Amino acid sequence: MDFTETTIDRTVIYNGKIIDLELHEVELPNGKRAKRELIYHNGAVAVCAVTPENEVLLVKQYRKPIEQPLLEIPAGKLEQGEQLESAAKRELSEETGYVAEHLVHITDMYGSPGFSNEKLSIYFTDKLSPGKMHLDDDEFVELHKIPLTEISQRLATNEITDAKTIIALQYLLLHYNNSK
Amino acid sequence: MDFTETTIDRTVIYNGKIIDLELHEVELPNGKRAKRELIYHNGAVAVCAVTPENEVLLVKQYRKPIEQPLLEIPAGKLEQGEQLESAAKRELSEETGYVAEHLVHITDMYGSPGFSNEKLSIYFTDKLSPGKMHLDDDEFVELHKIPLTEISQRLATNEITDAKTIIALQYLLLHYNNSK
Repeated sequence: MDFTETTIDRTVIYNGKIIDLELHEVELPNGKRAKRELIYHNGAVAVCAVTPENEVLLVKQYRKPIEQPLLEIPAGKLEQGEQLESAAKRELSEETGYVAEHLVHITDMYGSPGFSNEKLSIYFTDKLSPGKMHLDDDEFVELHKIPLTEISQRLATNEITDAKTIIALQYLLLHYNNSK
Repeated sequence: MDFTETTIDRTVIYNGKIIDLELHEVELPNGKRAKRELIYHNGAVAVCAVTPENEVLLVKQYRKPIEQPLLEIPAGKLEQGEQLESAAKRELSEETGYVAEHLVHITDMYGSPGFSNEKLSIYFTDKLSPGKMHLDDDEFVELHKIPLTEISQRLATNEITDAKTIIALQYLLLHYNNSK
């Protein structure tokens, strides 16, 4: 079955720093028309990093859309033209101080594919060298080191609600022996 | 540490059918100001449903933001005032035809907490009665039944890229015996 929705008319509502909003009129497979509200985002990267002490690195930061702090794996937006793995190493180092020589790709994910094209690439590493956090003046991030042995319980209590972080922690439970 | 970002000024850019866009000027914990681009969404529900034949129900549909079809667990927006579990049963029935008497809550997830407040509640069931799909004229959804024994491989090849679906399938691998 060909599901393609062809754009017939396109209105740019907003061009922002992080997101753009467009309204498309599309032609459906049955020839009818429909409206689509579309958020465009440059993409993001995240790192599931395990220390030599068998802890996973999480960062706590305030998320304005939901008016509360969330516990998440280190992550950030892709800069224009930036290579995925370089961006992931940069975000890890900025937010946690830890430096990774090499990252392994776990998966890509779309968090809200109904209205947003944001694609997030998740990487894994357990080869870390400690270093210094270097946040911007306007970044408020708190580092949390969670023992691998606590992951199951942290997921079971639903205190972790960030999608990429749930995926990363489940991944450790499934594939990383030290977490069992 | 108190991370709260207090809204000082708020501009509504767009009020849509699915999403609203607002631009907030916030005061940071250090007293400085910053801009936040915020997408507001009414929330959504999804169901990880396993048939008596040990298959998980997935639906394939075109996702306009990324211009491709995605394979996802059945899901949909919460209607105004609708109760979460009722909405989840409704979406399951509309998109797959299967009727669930009772659902178990797996987790809530934020797919893009950096800019969106969309909260998605994921449920599980393996108590299903078959029925008839009843899609709107303008919904194009293809039902795929994936044997539980194929889940590991489907995840390993990265062909599943929808966040809620990765979470649901990894949940089955971790907690549902028949998937091993």
